[in-house]
Amino acid sequence: MTAKYKLVLIRHGESVYNQQNLFCGWHDADLSETGIKEAVAAGQLLKELNYEFDIAFTSVLKRAIKTLYLLQEELDCHWLPVIRSWRLNERHYGGLQGLNKAQTAEKYGNSKVKDWRRSYDIPPPPLEKTDGRWSGKDKQYQDMDQGMIPACECLKDTVERTLPFWYDSIVPAIKSGKRVLISAHGNSLRGLVKYLDNKTELEITELNIPTAMPLVYELDENLRPVQSYYLGSAEEVAAAQAKVANQGTAK
Amino acid sequence: MTAKYKLVLIRHGESVYNQQNLFCGWHDADLSETGIKEAVAAGQLLKELNYEFDIAFTSVLKRAIKTLYLLQEELDCHWLPVIRSWRLNERHYGGLQGLNKAQTAEKYGNSKVKDWRRSYDIPPPPLEKTDGRWSGKDKQYQDMDQGMIPACECLKDTVERTLPFWYDSIVPAIKSGKRVLISAHGNSLRGLVKYLDNKTELEITELNIPTAMPLVYELDENLRPVQSYYLGSAEEVAAAQAKVANQGTAK
Repeated sequence: MTAKYKLVLIRHGESVYNQQNLFCGWHDADLSETGIKEAVAAGQLLKELNYEFDIAFTSVLKRAIKTLYLLQEELDCHWLPVIRSWRLNERHYGGLQGLNKAQTAEKYGNSKVKDWRRSYDIPPPPLEKTDGRWSGKDKQYQDMDQGMIPACECLKDTVERTLPFWYDSIVPAIKSGKRVLISAHGNSLRGLVKYLDNKTELEITELNIPTAMPLVYELDENLRPVQSYYLGSAEEVAAAQAKVANQGTAK
Repeated sequence: MTAKYKLVLIRHGESVYNQQNLFCGWHDADLSETGIKEAVAAGQLLKELNYEFDIAFTSVLKRAIKTLYLLQEELDCHWLPVIRSWRLNERHYGGLQGLNKAQTAEKYGNSKVKDWRRSYDIPPPPLEKTDGRWSGKDKQYQDMDQGMIPACECLKDTVERTLPFWYDSIVPAIKSGKRVLISAHGNSLRGLVKYLDNKTELEITELNIPTAMPLVYELDENLRPVQSYYLGSAEEVAAAQAKVANQGTAK
């Protein structure tokens, strides 16, 4: 197979919630200082390797948008069209958002917490509409049908709401010959990777995507992967993946 | 008349070219340190006055895009859809781009330079396609019909290519009830102001828009202005306008 298209995915740099080991989900946490540095380094790497883009896609959460902006700064391409969509958001962590792992285990028990974090289709407890954390209160979602705003998501839910955006918006851009950059989140990117690499549910729950490390997919004319690889040295990639695995899935 | 809609225009903060008194035009100059501070202050002012937006429009030049980003940072609205278009770019200064006023006067004579800077319809000398500064080499314009890329523009040309974007993209957004923010340039904003305030050609050549000072238009249901005003104290507005007038039109 011959590669016809190249697609670059990147998970946002570390957020202040990653740093504090809190469940983040749709909470609009900012990048940490480390996250800013990670994004700048990723931009410099793409620059060194002469990557160029024609369009970018991101979520409506600032940690992904800012990561993208920092890449654009390094690549000197602030002019790129940037399309934001909630469909690229992180998995909605429902009632766990803002809690840390210790609090969560205390409140719900270890076994349940493990299910929520490691399973493909067991959703965490929902956020009630009366809860101050209910996403319908966030301005990002003011034009959405309130019934479409999740109260919580299992990984399966995230994959299922991410893929329509792939088909409707990203595929046409790639097929038109545009070089696409996607700045998103651990679980929305898992959705794309599951689809592209045809991974099983078990395989995708075990796959960790490191922060701010560009993941390149070379695709054939039918948008099937010819090969995929992280940019960076083998040591950096391995270290980043190990770091993510040790954090658990408190994204 | 009753105001139904509110529109906010902002000219980018000072660029490094403004600072050095060079003709900038479509050259993609960065913000200066002063320009960054101006944009942050404008964002803080909008925040204090409880301004909120649903969509933003900007040019494909980084000084306008970065000004917008700094406003978004202060207003905590990185999620806003941002639409970039070359039609909001600064006036194309042709062969003058990158020259300073002294060099320009030396090369072309004072009388001609005055015409180029102050007239409505006398274009500056064109940039040749063989010139290293030819805009067709810039990646921003790679998808444009090369015949549409200007070699130079008089203010009339700028007004005429800005207004289609107003009608096609900005008006539908306003009419749908979205609160619109436009981050652009001295001359593309002059185009909008000329149209909105029904100014004569002479009036618009004499009107200076200060950098990074939010200009609010309250519009009736037919999008005709009910009133317009700069945000900031009367002293700040007067000082900013005087500063721009003293710079001449080397944008």
